[in-house]
Amino acid sequence: MSLRRIGRATSSLTPKSVGPWLLCADVLPTSFDYEGFFEQKISQKRTDNSYRVFNDINRLAERFPKARGGGHADITVWCANDYLGMSRHPLVIDTMRRVLSLHGAGSGGTRNISGNTRFHRELEAELADLHRKDAALVFTSCYVANDTTLQTLAKLLPNCIILSDKQNHASLIAGIQNSRADKVVFNHNDTNDLEQKLAALDPLRPKIVVFESVYSMSGVIAPVDEICTIARKYGALTFIDEVHAVGMYGDRGAGVGEQLGNHVMDKFDIVAGTLGKAYGVIGGYIAGSTGLVDTVRSYGSGFIFTTSLPPAVASGARVSVKHLKTSQVERTSQRRHVRELKTRLHKLGIPIAENTGHIVPILVGDAKICRAISDTLLQKHNIYVQSINYPTVPVRQERLRVTPTPAHTPDLLDTFSDALLDVWNLCGKN
Amino acid sequence: MSLRRIGRATSSLTPKSVGPWLLCADVLPTSFDYEGFFEQKISQKRTDNSYRVFNDINRLAERFPKARGGGHADITVWCANDYLGMSRHPLVIDTMRRVLSLHGAGSGGTRNISGNTRFHRELEAELADLHRKDAALVFTSCYVANDTTLQTLAKLLPNCIILSDKQNHASLIAGIQNSRADKVVFNHNDTNDLEQKLAALDPLRPKIVVFESVYSMSGVIAPVDEICTIARKYGALTFIDEVHAVGMYGDRGAGVGEQLGNHVMDKFDIVAGTLGKAYGVIGGYIAGSTGLVDTVRSYGSGFIFTTSLPPAVASGARVSVKHLKTSQVERTSQRRHVRELKTRLHKLGIPIAENTGHIVPILVGDAKICRAISDTLLQKHNIYVQSINYPTVPVRQERLRVTPTPAHTPDLLDTFSDALLDVWNLCGKN
Repeated sequence: MSLRRIGRATSSLTPKSVGPWLLCADVLPTSFDYEGFFEQKISQKRTDNSYRVFNDINRLAERFPKARGGGHADITVWCANDYLGMSRHPLVIDTMRRVLSLHGAGSGGTRNISGNTRFHRELEAELADLHRKDAALVFTSCYVANDTTLQTLAKLLPNCIILSDKQNHASLIAGIQNSRADKVVFNHNDTNDLEQKLAALDPLRPKIVVFESVYSMSGVIAPVDEICTIARKYGALTFIDEVHAVGMYGDRGAGVGEQLGNHVMDKFDIVAGTLGKAYGVIGGYIAGSTGLVDTVRSYGSGFIFTTSLPPAVASGARVSVKHLKTSQVERTSQRRHVRELKTRLHKLGIPIAENTGHIVPILVGDAKICRAISDTLLQKHNIYVQSINYPTVPVRQERLRVTPTPAHTPDLLDTFSDALLDVWNLCGKN
Repeated sequence: MSLRRIGRATSSLTPKSVGPWLLCADVLPTSFDYEGFFEQKISQKRTDNSYRVFNDINRLAERFPKARGGGHADITVWCANDYLGMSRHPLVIDTMRRVLSLHGAGSGGTRNISGNTRFHRELEAELADLHRKDAALVFTSCYVANDTTLQTLAKLLPNCIILSDKQNHASLIAGIQNSRADKVVFNHNDTNDLEQKLAALDPLRPKIVVFESVYSMSGVIAPVDEICTIARKYGALTFIDEVHAVGMYGDRGAGVGEQLGNHVMDKFDIVAGTLGKAYGVIGGYIAGSTGLVDTVRSYGSGFIFTTSLPPAVASGARVSVKHLKTSQVERTSQRRHVRELKTRLHKLGIPIAENTGHIVPILVGDAKICRAISDTLLQKHNIYVQSINYPTVPVRQERLRVTPTPAHTPDLLDTFSDALLDVWNLCGKN
């Protein structure tokens, strides 16, 4: 039932992990000790406090933002990416329940082989309209959308070079690395650095500037207009990841680009978004020109060779996107609660990473203490804020990442602030 | 709204695609012509008949295997990977509807940040038990499971080398290529070739033999016991993709390994499976030893940095897996229909790729004719079998891939055989 121990002892392994061999003098090491190696990799994680134990969080749709799990019946969740609570919106749930009954659980195939429904088409039309683009393409996740799109474009475009923001998300880095195209990293949100790096390149060489609008772990918003202007000046395509911004910014929820004005969002050549955060469901997408989107659709391995999203998921995502195109109430109250939380934390003297966006990162800077604060908040106060450690943030930048939603009312804000202060002191941070 | 045309004309572009430049004498080409390039890539696809137009197929749960779409109200679907019709099983749908109402549409985060529920844990326990392994890990798809697992292991294991079956699926190839580990390709299902290639390698070097149990496009079943025996002899890990076999083979649906006996499946170090085919939902997984699975969980970028499957999806997949551990009725009638279809096609003289499995590939060998047969079946007979073309199969191996389910009764088999013969003759194949 488990990997056999046929490996040899190496100096980097503990005696325990190779124990059996020490007892079997007649067995010569004939191959690599896989099991010992895996134990060693896990042991490294435990030693540097980056080993992850997943908290059991069963969010309750009717009592949002409450959850139960791990013996707790009344947890308040403060760190989900379901920023607007759309995962429990009756429109979304009712639509999904209806489509589930009508069309079943799974799509039954890839988009090309029996897995293409009207719900996929309608969702893509809704997203293209949202971003004022010709076309959109839906993937099973935005990790896959980013990885596949960048990989496909940068492999196809002859001698393509990628200019990538230093703080880009793992999925963007994956797509860039997997394309094996040349890459230049520019300093985070540094338009001067970007311009210098672009100016040094052959103007006729295909190039893609890859960046995010809202950076997940700092909440910082990029100078997206400036980046696009520079990219255009030097003939580069722009690929913007609006994952944390779609549904959240702009009158119709198209993201930071829309908030800055249609003339800004129209400068994006490729916009990537998710259906799994503000829209409350799952899946990812890109939007862009007909030719670009059709090229990714026709050549992208991660799009072609995978089962499409269930019709119920596509339908739920679509009504969520559509709803947030006209409804402002979720965004308005969510913003008010973010402002109120930031004010409270300032008053308490608890350090947060400053930003103008919706993510409130409480800076701890130590993996062990950060984990202890998170655990104590849950155990003592029924408050769940996951500690964020390496590799999601660099070592010594460990934090609690707080995301107030429309349902995190002033009462809940009070309870949270009091509890945090209590635990902050307990854990010796003050 | 679309990519600007700022490119230069190159000899490989048609005049049409760079037309605007010919009219603007005062504009010098200052950058690459992206839009022209994308048009050219799409035009290539149209020219070689590999351009894909997705058929609109809305499968009807209560009338399985019927669907509607594209103006047709009564399509019979013959090519879905919902092999046992589990996507419409009342147990699956009712569970998902209940969990949807209780826990909402999306999980709200990664597994580490608020996206870990009891449904994920229970599903992983169910899958570990299915495959008689210590642990299992669920991904958003099996494309991601394969890509992430191979990439993670082959990057971590020092100087790892992969031995890969020549016919491996795109997701396995992606994981191998993205790892940048050395790779040796062995001839399809050729155990002699595999042994020769393993024997030539340093015995102490970490190595992984990567193969599938049922090859999707030929339906051929691999000599899995022999491959594992050879791999073990040379100290290699075995990674078997049982995607088309889970739910389908073995008394509990664990796949080809189980059908051959527990002693065979216990030789697999890593087994990959999907929740989107026989299990009828969506998602993918691996199962293996505690250390191996924990290593992929702790280091795999495609696992860590993505929103987890919705609780409703995890719960639906779990009841489907559990149901097929004891119920034989779906597998039994599905097999009977496969046998009956193969007999009918033999009698009609329609060429199929021979195999002992559940997939019936009808060989056409020409992209245009294959597409015409598929289109005519749909237009004239309300029968949907997608034409499979490049890159899913090599050029000149185009085929119709037929997958009878428990619901494809003798009546439907008769209708299908008659219709196929009619269209086969119409399209000049006889």
